[in-house]
Amino acid sequence: MKVTLHRSFHFNAAHRLYQSDWSEEHNFKVFGKCSFPNYHGHNYELIVSITGEIDEKTGFVFSIETLKNIVKTHIEDVLDHKNLNLDIEAFQNVNPTLENIIVYIWNVLRTEIPMDKELKITLYETPRNFAEYSGT
Amino acid sequence: MKVTLHRSFHFNAAHRLYQSDWSEEHNFKVFGKCSFPNYHGHNYELIVSITGEIDEKTGFVFSIETLKNIVKTHIEDVLDHKNLNLDIEAFQNVNPTLENIIVYIWNVLRTEIPMDKELKITLYETPRNFAEYSGT
Amino acid sequence: MKVTLHRSFHFNAAHRLYQSDWSEEHNFKVFGKCSFPNYHGHNYELIVSITGEIDEKTGFVFSIETLKNIVKTHIEDVLDHKNLNLDIEAFQNVNPTLENIIVYIWNVLRTEIPMDKELKITLYETPRNFAEYSGT
Amino acid sequence: MKVTLHRSFHFNAAHRLYQSDWSEEHNFKVFGKCSFPNYHGHNYELIVSITGEIDEKTGFVFSIETLKNIVKTHIEDVLDHKNLNLDIEAFQNVNPTLENIIVYIWNVLRTEIPMDKELKITLYETPRNFAEYSGT
Amino acid sequence: MKVTLHRSFHFNAAHRLYQSDWSEEHNFKVFGKCSFPNYHGHNYELIVSITGEIDEKTGFVFSIETLKNIVKTHIEDVLDHKNLNLDIEAFQNVNPTLENIIVYIWNVLRTEIPMDKELKITLYETPRNFAEYSGT
Amino acid sequence: MKVTLHRSFHFNAAHRLYQSDWSEEHNFKVFGKCSFPNYHGHNYELIVSITGEIDEKTGFVFSIETLKNIVKTHIEDVLDHKNLNLDIEAFQNVNPTLENIIVYIWNVLRTEIPMDKELKITLYETPRNFAEYSGT
Repeated sequence: MKVTLHRSFHFNAAHRLYQSDWSEEHNFKVFGKCSFPNYHGHNYELIVSITGEIDEKTGFVFSIETLKNIVKTHIEDVLDHKNLNLDIEAFQNVNPTLENIIVYIWNVLRTEIPMDKELKITLYETPRNFAEYSGT
Repeated sequence: MKVTLHRSFHFNAAHRLYQSDWSEEHNFKVFGKCSFPNYHGHNYELIVSITGEIDEKTGFVFSIETLKNIVKTHIEDVLDHKNLNLDIEAFQNVNPTLENIIVYIWNVLRTEIPMDKELKITLYETPRNFAEYSGT
Repeated sequence: MKVTLHRSFHFNAAHRLYQSDWSEEHNFKVFGKCSFPNYHGHNYELIVSITGEIDEKTGFVFSIETLKNIVKTHIEDVLDHKNLNLDIEAFQNVNPTLENIIVYIWNVLRTEIPMDKELKITLYETPRNFAEYSGT
Repeated sequence: MKVTLHRSFHFNAAHRLYQSDWSEEHNFKVFGKCSFPNYHGHNYELIVSITGEIDEKTGFVFSIETLKNIVKTHIEDVLDHKNLNLDIEAFQNVNPTLENIIVYIWNVLRTEIPMDKELKITLYETPRNFAEYSGT
Repeated sequence: MKVTLHRSFHFNAAHRLYQSDWSEEHNFKVFGKCSFPNYHGHNYELIVSITGEIDEKTGFVFSIETLKNIVKTHIEDVLDHKNLNLDIEAFQNVNPTLENIIVYIWNVLRTEIPMDKELKITLYETPRNFAEYSGT
Repeated sequence: MKVTLHRSFHFNAAHRLYQSDWSEEHNFKVFGKCSFPNYHGHNYELIVSITGEIDEKTGFVFSIETLKNIVKTHIEDVLDHKNLNLDIEAFQNVNPTLENIIVYIWNVLRTEIPMDKELKITLYETPRNFAEYSGT
């Protein structure tokens, strides 16, 4: 009897999409305005989804307070109000696309959430562009 | 060829989270402000999701009118504008957490929706805290 | 050249609408399910709107950090996860309707926001029921 | 390591639900106001969800620009500001219910999206009525 | 001490924008896809805003139950699931644009809401196109 | 008989808040994380509100197509996917706060919208922080 608990978070960040070994023209052809040199940014909305059994005593699948602390320390304090290309080591050689950011966040949180819980991440770059990843 | 039909509903209720065999301090440590003695409340948003074959004649997986009647009788008339701890028998000895409420609603609706349809429930306690349950 | 700055907040509370000198029947006639004896509750969404000149140095009409501190101390810490009828002195003899709550919040914030700024409050009881008040 | 990329689109259309071999009374009994003779309409919100591996060079599962072109040509230009019953061949003898429209859209897009990607469609008829289909 | 009470409603309708004394080309130039002959439609979201003094006994500016009855009888039963051009007398010779619909609704409701209350209407044709009217 | 027509737009941009003649500490004290050196960003949501008489022939206060062209040329092409501090001349010596950006946008649009129409701008920096400006 497994329930999935979802909690949303957000962070604001700047980024730019480009491949350093491509010409500016080819970068623009593939990434459009996202390749502009001086960065743009987004209000990222993050949903963390944890699936597991309900604890009989608390009635919780997972403590939201604990989850808020984990996300604050490992995601918000690291990504919020940052430039993903310049400030985050993981994106030095990896394009900070929605897809690559979501895999990064899942990998970080997977080491913090007990392994008897399933973990899925949903990430909105804009209200109309979003992605999901569950590690498989 | 199965389609999932979703329909959202809502109800407003008061509740409180606490364990009668724990001290007030321990209740506050685990449940925080949710343990305050005089109750607080939420606008609960409920999404009922029914999966099945499309009926060739009507073009429906399930009649939304029928679903509205089921949810009105078995959920809204029972939970809306109620105090979950005081008014609902199921929560006399069970904490009305998001997780326990969603299992309660799924169990009630499962007996009302034909068994050839799959049933999933999504329940929002706030726009940022929500849960999903499909009975497994 | 005045700009209006808006910032949203939220709190969850229980309440009940009734008049102690009316019969139960008359209370139900006027307040419907909102008169149920054991309270229900809402996710209240609060928007604080401050109008004034832009400070030349900061570029702000008002510091959002300062506003967050004011609202935390005077509104959230007082109303969040509370029972408005039982816990809040102002509603001992005043019905905690949307209209009365918004006047209460405006009066509290008006004494905390400098008088050279105009103040308007918007309060959502549900996504479909809301009110506005600017003190006049 | 598969990520799901979601992108939302919208179109506005008129439609009517009825079965020509049923009486008007029976149509009203089954379809309610949706059977009214002169059509009504909706702001349809469409979410296209594509699951696949992340391309190492671009960081994309699928190019959103390519997806926008596909949806414009095959869905928006065909359905937007149209009468589904009168203008769309597929609904000449099939009721344009949410369920039948979503299967129609999935079938159209499935031929345009490479087969190594999984495809799921979510379609909102109103903010409270929506459906999902993934072809199985 | 006047408070504004807002309540949202919705209705779904079909319509078409065109001027019978203009050529089809000119209609398309002015109204674009909205001039297509077989109608399209929208989920209209309506917000009714009533401003007045708070009644000391009830704590209400206006009874939401009374407002719901007024809007049901005079707006929803008349416009919901209808074709504005074909079914509504007021739009026989008047284009059912957002602007003309909002004036129509305001005029209808103004005769039903007591004149000591101010009345404003907000009408969404889509989440991104909306209008406001207060009779002046 | 004046109606207000609203239309929403959006653009994504990077920015940073700081005063070059202040110490880094003082910048952090006033602007917090918004002063971080490598920029962050937002999904800005812009609502343009135009008030005027309804044209008898078209039924429009203002043509949305015309408005879309104006906003595309003068706002979206200029601000979208840009760094407000680095790319926009107006913010070379002016902090790109919500308040200063909204005044900038209003000033640009005011010269493009006929003077017999009133103009108001609403700008969301995040879903919870927004501002309004009408030029007075």
